[in-house]
Amino acid sequence: MEVRSIDIAIIGAGSAGLYAFSKAKHSGKSVVLIDGGELGTTCCRVGCMPSKAIIQVAEDFHRPAIFHRFGIAGREQLSIDLAETMEYVQDTRDHFVDQVLTTSIDDLPPEQLIESNCKFLEPTLLETDEGERIRANAVIIATGSTPIVPKAWHRFRDRILTTDEFFELETLPASVAVIGLGVIGLEIGQAMHRLGVAVSGIDQLQTIGGISDPKVAHAAIETIGKELPLWLGHPAEISEGANGKLRVTAGEHSVEVDKVFASLGRRPNLDKLNLDVLGVPCNDKGIPEHNPNTMQIGDLPVFIAGDVSGNRPILHEAGDEGRIAGYNASRDQIVAFKRRTPLHITFSDPNIVRVGASFAELDPETTAVGAMRVAPVGRALIMARNRGLIHIYADKASGKLLGCEMVAPAGEHLAHLMVLAISQQMTVGQLLQLPFYHPTMEEGLQAALRDLYRQVQAKNAGPITELEKL
Amino acid sequence: MEVRSIDIAIIGAGSAGLYAFSKAKHSGKSVVLIDGGELGTTCCRVGCMPSKAIIQVAEDFHRPAIFHRFGIAGREQLSIDLAETMEYVQDTRDHFVDQVLTTSIDDLPPEQLIESNCKFLEPTLLETDEGERIRANAVIIATGSTPIVPKAWHRFRDRILTTDEFFELETLPASVAVIGLGVIGLEIGQAMHRLGVAVSGIDQLQTIGGISDPKVAHAAIETIGKELPLWLGHPAEISEGANGKLRVTAGEHSVEVDKVFASLGRRPNLDKLNLDVLGVPCNDKGIPEHNPNTMQIGDLPVFIAGDVSGNRPILHEAGDEGRIAGYNASRDQIVAFKRRTPLHITFSDPNIVRVGASFAELDPETTAVGAMRVAPVGRALIMARNRGLIHIYADKASGKLLGCEMVAPAGEHLAHLMVLAISQQMTVGQLLQLPFYHPTMEEGLQAALRDLYRQVQAKNAGPITELEKL
Repeated sequence: MEVRSIDIAIIGAGSAGLYAFSKAKHSGKSVVLIDGGELGTTCCRVGCMPSKAIIQVAEDFHRPAIFHRFGIAGREQLSIDLAETMEYVQDTRDHFVDQVLTTSIDDLPPEQLIESNCKFLEPTLLETDEGERIRANAVIIATGSTPIVPKAWHRFRDRILTTDEFFELETLPASVAVIGLGVIGLEIGQAMHRLGVAVSGIDQLQTIGGISDPKVAHAAIETIGKELPLWLGHPAEISEGANGKLRVTAGEHSVEVDKVFASLGRRPNLDKLNLDVLGVPCNDKGIPEHNPNTMQIGDLPVFIAGDVSGNRPILHEAGDEGRIAGYNASRDQIVAFKRRTPLHITFSDPNIVRVGASFAELDPETTAVGAMRVAPVGRALIMARNRGLIHIYADKASGKLLGCEMVAPAGEHLAHLMVLAISQQMTVGQLLQLPFYHPTMEEGLQAALRDLYRQVQAKNAGPITELEKL
Repeated sequence: MEVRSIDIAIIGAGSAGLYAFSKAKHSGKSVVLIDGGELGTTCCRVGCMPSKAIIQVAEDFHRPAIFHRFGIAGREQLSIDLAETMEYVQDTRDHFVDQVLTTSIDDLPPEQLIESNCKFLEPTLLETDEGERIRANAVIIATGSTPIVPKAWHRFRDRILTTDEFFELETLPASVAVIGLGVIGLEIGQAMHRLGVAVSGIDQLQTIGGISDPKVAHAAIETIGKELPLWLGHPAEISEGANGKLRVTAGEHSVEVDKVFASLGRRPNLDKLNLDVLGVPCNDKGIPEHNPNTMQIGDLPVFIAGDVSGNRPILHEAGDEGRIAGYNASRDQIVAFKRRTPLHITFSDPNIVRVGASFAELDPETTAVGAMRVAPVGRALIMARNRGLIHIYADKASGKLLGCEMVAPAGEHLAHLMVLAISQQMTVGQLLQLPFYHPTMEEGLQAALRDLYRQVQAKNAGPITELEKL
């Protein structure tokens, strides 16, 4: 059988694969993209983009609940046609998918895109489902991930939604149990609730949105729990209910629902790759051990990038991993890259944010915690969004900023400010040299920083003026 | 006549005066606050806070205009009772004023607050309207400012609103000409328009919101000009109209309106202070020459702080000036303080922002301009707020960030990120090491930074990884 020879083969044409492709192409290498699934990225098809679209509609439909305070009447006359809403969400999604396809896929010459699944025969020899064999100097695995649905629930699969099915719905069900309250469960759960779905939120953890700080978790649960019921601390069980419904039980709670939305995480797409031939150890998720700074698997000319690597399933990190893998696959010398400061945002209302080191990762002995409730922040009051809690962490001795967790309006923006300060290894005193405009939500950060400043020893480490000492 | 002796006399109990008072008190000095006007700060009574309150209502009432795109019907059933709205704004204002009074004024012992105007008899001798004389070791002038209404318009004064009158209105007029499209004119003008007032916006400049970059100005004028008519480039003239209305003419345009909103700037409150006795030179606005890093006037034990100083009429700068003046008035040795990086936000929709050096201040020969339109930013599209333009300035050779001007949704937050980066003297390459979360408005900044990065010579100045070089 004829074997096609290529410099670099990239398995998977999602975000990571496309970044890797672009990087490898720029190096002048011959490259092929191999993808047997639907084209378009997880981000655009079922992730970041369509979720933000439905969240925006939900927020806009929810907001008029406070209009009466402002002298605005007629809110009860507003109605929503969920079929129209879903059509809007799908149109928006299609726009973003088209954009990706237009800029990255459509113009590829046929020899650079193989629409097929493939498996490893050797570390540098691949075979497609059609039997085509490809010998590559380097291979990049960028096959993405798939929503987890536990085996025990497979018999209810027709009534279980994941993000793969959710954005295809023609309308929303009347009642849904959201199982798993991480980023996706919270975002979609709260959005459905605000669009009129009877939502029950369930998680076996005692926290939501990945918050590790108990006080911040408490504030988030209290705030979002005022909108929709949150059942925490018990695993969910599903059984057959009446009239075709599903009965979902967690601890003492039980509810019958039309659908379950399963947001229990995603598993790497590795099953079909025949990874055994790589001869490298894998972690407990079946992911081959690799260096997150080079994306290289062992000493092989094989790299891994994006959600499938299990490192940081977020678009900007998938992009970095794709670029790192593409860069290293194109060169003889492997280069290690510094990864970015951790940044996690849940686009719930209020936003849930984690930047840098999480509370759980820090030593309480050496860490100071600066706190500010959102309630008294002037702008939050004016926005009628005055719920939440901001916690910022710093090293007690040096005053160096380490991380933060918060549930706060405009948290997505405060997160970017904090990630810059933490990336720059700034101290509390230095960050307080920043002008904070009045009245903004950034003043909530400022108040938390002032609280933190009182607790750290190094008041003025670094090149700062005396202003904050006054 | 008996003369009261005191360490520090502060004339004016607004934001700057209160900060100065607090700082001086902490030093253990005897201090007196002298204020003959209404207590409560400009910020709370007629500035930042009530303006944000009415802007929020206006934005919420305006937003449903796009609801039909999302499948939400009934928008035309929404109605607003402007008397209720103004009552809400006034209640909100009163809440913030009460907060200031409660925390700063109410508990003052009577000997620390003199409710009277006063004037200088000597640089350290004051006399109140009631004839009380106060000899102070140091005096701080913090008398604030007053909206400008040109003399020629005084005969129409009953139909001219400034911020002093606006927030007292029981309802809004049917038609208003807003003269002066700086921060206040734009904010209040757009808010009134969105609340149903027929607003004409007029400015003799060819820009709005203090934008100095012609392209950014063009984008702002185009965007906001789609909502309400903006007549630029000609001074406004007022004459008597029909039926008690005012006729306002600017260049070729003319309109009859119920009221004029005059937002032409503010003049320092200095008239009654008898400043001649200080024997120091004044600038063309009558403001005594002083050092903006110490707030000292000449070599006198007299300091100036807040809006009256004419430096930076913004709350956080007034606070700084008050603290600097209070600090220096309390000590024998005068200390110079570094002032914060300039930060200007107009809370129009989209926000108008200027950070660091303005375009006009920069040398086009040595400055690179990174640009990004808001339209293609994914999140802006999802928010249905996809109008605006971001310009970021850097030194061509060193890549050091110098400033930015923009008109953009969430501009208030992007401004804080930019002011931190500029304050830290970061390069474009360094700022691009920041993780930018997807999909956020911060990605608009990222795109402008990438455009800028292509134009600067120093690609990797500073301790950065190679990620952005890929």
